[in-house]
Amino acid sequence: MIRSPSTRVYADARQRLEALAKPVGALGRVEDLAAWLSACQGVCPPRPVEFVRAVILAGDHGVSHSPVSAYPREVTAAMVRAFVAGVAAASCLARQHDVALRVLDLGVDDDLADLPAEVSAYHIGPSQPIHLRDALTAEQGRQSLAVGRALAEAEIAAGADLLILGDMGIGNTTPAAALIAASFGVGAEQVVGRGTGIDDERLAHKTAILTQALHRMGDRVADPRTRLAGLGSADLAVGVGFLCTAARRGVPVLLDGIVSLAELAVAEELEPGVIGWCVAGHRSTEPAQQLALDKLGLEPILDLGLRLGEGTGALLALPVLRSAGLLLTEMALLSDLTSGG
Amino acid sequence: MIRSPSTRVYADARQRLEALAKPVGALGRVEDLAAWLSACQGVCPPRPVEFVRAVILAGDHGVSHSPVSAYPREVTAAMVRAFVAGVAAASCLARQHDVALRVLDLGVDDDLADLPAEVSAYHIGPSQPIHLRDALTAEQGRQSLAVGRALAEAEIAAGADLLILGDMGIGNTTPAAALIAASFGVGAEQVVGRGTGIDDERLAHKTAILTQALHRMGDRVADPRTRLAGLGSADLAVGVGFLCTAARRGVPVLLDGIVSLAELAVAEELEPGVIGWCVAGHRSTEPAQQLALDKLGLEPILDLGLRLGEGTGALLALPVLRSAGLLLTEMALLSDLTSGG
Repeated sequence: MIRSPSTRVYADARQRLEALAKPVGALGRVEDLAAWLSACQGVCPPRPVEFVRAVILAGDHGVSHSPVSAYPREVTAAMVRAFVAGVAAASCLARQHDVALRVLDLGVDDDLADLPAEVSAYHIGPSQPIHLRDALTAEQGRQSLAVGRALAEAEIAAGADLLILGDMGIGNTTPAAALIAASFGVGAEQVVGRGTGIDDERLAHKTAILTQALHRMGDRVADPRTRLAGLGSADLAVGVGFLCTAARRGVPVLLDGIVSLAELAVAEELEPGVIGWCVAGHRSTEPAQQLALDKLGLEPILDLGLRLGEGTGALLALPVLRSAGLLLTEMALLSDLTSGG
Repeated sequence: MIRSPSTRVYADARQRLEALAKPVGALGRVEDLAAWLSACQGVCPPRPVEFVRAVILAGDHGVSHSPVSAYPREVTAAMVRAFVAGVAAASCLARQHDVALRVLDLGVDDDLADLPAEVSAYHIGPSQPIHLRDALTAEQGRQSLAVGRALAEAEIAAGADLLILGDMGIGNTTPAAALIAASFGVGAEQVVGRGTGIDDERLAHKTAILTQALHRMGDRVADPRTRLAGLGSADLAVGVGFLCTAARRGVPVLLDGIVSLAELAVAEELEPGVIGWCVAGHRSTEPAQQLALDKLGLEPILDLGLRLGEGTGALLALPVLRSAGLLLTEMALLSDLTSGG
C-alpha cells in the first residue's frame, strides 16, 4: 500500500484557499488541484511546479498487422524520429511549457539505427497479437515493469517536480482498451473506440480482435501481472512500473489519455494508492478512457475532444495545474486587504 | 457590419491542420482554435500569440446597496488596490503567462487617492440601482462607450496580439444577468445565479431585483444603447465599446465570464460581427453566462466551475490558445516524416 499525499497539508491548503482574496470556492476545480498539489508536496503553500519531465514510451503492437488503425505500422518509427527532431505535437508543447521531454523505444519494430543509441537503450520488443497469444512473455512483463521503475527513478533523480507519461505506437489503443475492459470487467463493445480515426469496417475488426483477446485470456485476467503481459505491450508495462515508482516516491503524475488510464488501472491493483498521486489531464474521445476515468473517480482538467496521445493532453493541461499552485502561493489573503485598505 | 476573420486563411489553416504529423482531427477543439487564430491574423501559419494585454474594468453598482452579493460594497475598492499591488488572482495568472495587466476604475465608489492617478483617469461613476432607475444617464452611456473604444485603441497601439477583458465590482453579476436576460428575451429566473456565493435568501432578493429591473425597462430594452444605459453600468458599457473597437480593428479577444458575455451580447447588436473576433475562455457556474454561450453559439475552452471574474477564466485558458497557434506553426507535416524516414 502506497501512502497518500498528506491529509494534514491538504486540510491546511483547503483552509488557506478559503482565506484567499476571492469568494470561497470561486476558483472551482482549480482549488481542488491546488490542494492536491500542496498535499503531494507535503507543504502549504506549495512550491512552483517548475521542473516537469515527460517521457514518451514508444512501441509497436502485434495487432497492427491487422487493420485496427488508420495508419500503417511504420508510422511508429517515423514518429519516434519526429520526437527526436522536436517536431511532433508533444515536442512543441513541451518547448512551450519548458518541459524536459524524451522518447524511448521500448518495442519499436525498426532498428532506429539513425537515432542516438540511448533512444533504444531499453528496447524489449514489439508485442505479439493479443487476440492470438500473450503480448509478452512473463519474463518480458517482469523486465518491462523493472525498466519502468528504473526510468521513474532516473526522472526523479533528475529533479522532476511532476511527471508526464506519453505513449506512441500505431495500434496502441487496442491493448489499452483491452486492459481497461479486463480491469473493470466490461465487454469489448464498451471500450472500443476509433483511435486514430478508423472507419466502421476497421472498428468492427478492432471490436472482434478485442473480443477474441478477452475471450482468449478468460480467467487469467484476474492477476494484474498476467493481464498486463497477456493484453498489454512493452510500452504499456513500462508505463505501469513507472507510475508505481512515481507514486511510491511521492512524485505527482499528470495523466494523458487512454494509455495512461490503462496503465493506472493495472498499477493501482499492483500497488494500491498509486491513484492518489495522479491527476487526469484531459477527457479524450476514446470510450475506454472515459470509462476508466469514471471507474477510477478521476475528473479531468480539460475536455477538448483530443485523441492524439503522445502526452499532448497532459501537456496542454499543465499550465492550469501550475496556475493552481501559483494562486495558492501568491494570492493575498482577504484579511490582508481589508486590514490594509 | 464588422468584417469577419479571413475565410481564405481559415480554409488554408484547416488544410494545413489536416496535413500535420498527427491523425486528421486528433487535436479536437485545439484545431478549431488554431484555425480561428490564423484567420484572425490573416496569415497561415499564425504568428505566436506573444503580446497579450488584459484590462480589468472596475466599478460599483447601485444594486450592491441591496443584499445581492455575499460581500460588502467596499470590497470593490479593496480589490482594485489588490490588482495594483499585484496580489489578486488575475495578477498572479497574468505574471505566469507574461500578460500586461492593468486595472481601471470606471465607477468605483471610493476616491482611491492612495493609488496612481491613471487608475481613475477614466472614472465615470457608480451606477444607479437598476431596479429603481436607469443605471447611467444617456450621456454617461455614450461617454462609457467612447472610453471603451479609446482604451481598446490604446491597447492595440501598445502592440496587443490578443486582448482580455476582466471585470471587478461587487454586485456586477446582477447588471450582467439583467443585460443577458434583456438581450435574449428571457426572464430573471433563467439568468439569476449565486455570483460570489449567495445564500437562498439573497438569491430570492437578487431575483426580485432582476425581475423589477426588467419590468421597469419594459420595451425600452429593444434599443441596445438604451438597454445598456438602463441595466448596465460604467464598467459594462466601457467593455462593450472595447469589444466593438477590438473587433473593428481585427484584434482577437479571449472572453471571460458572465460580464464578458453580457458585453458581447450588446456589442454584437451594436456592431454585428464582433463575435467573429471573440473566443470563449471558459464556462462559468453562472446560468446567465451559460445561456449567453449557448445563444451566441460559443464553445468555451475550459469548464472548471470558475466564478471569480477578473479575467481569471480567460487567463487560465490562454495557454491552450497559445498552444493551438504554436502547433499549427511548429509541427512537422506528415509528408515530411514519411519522405524523410
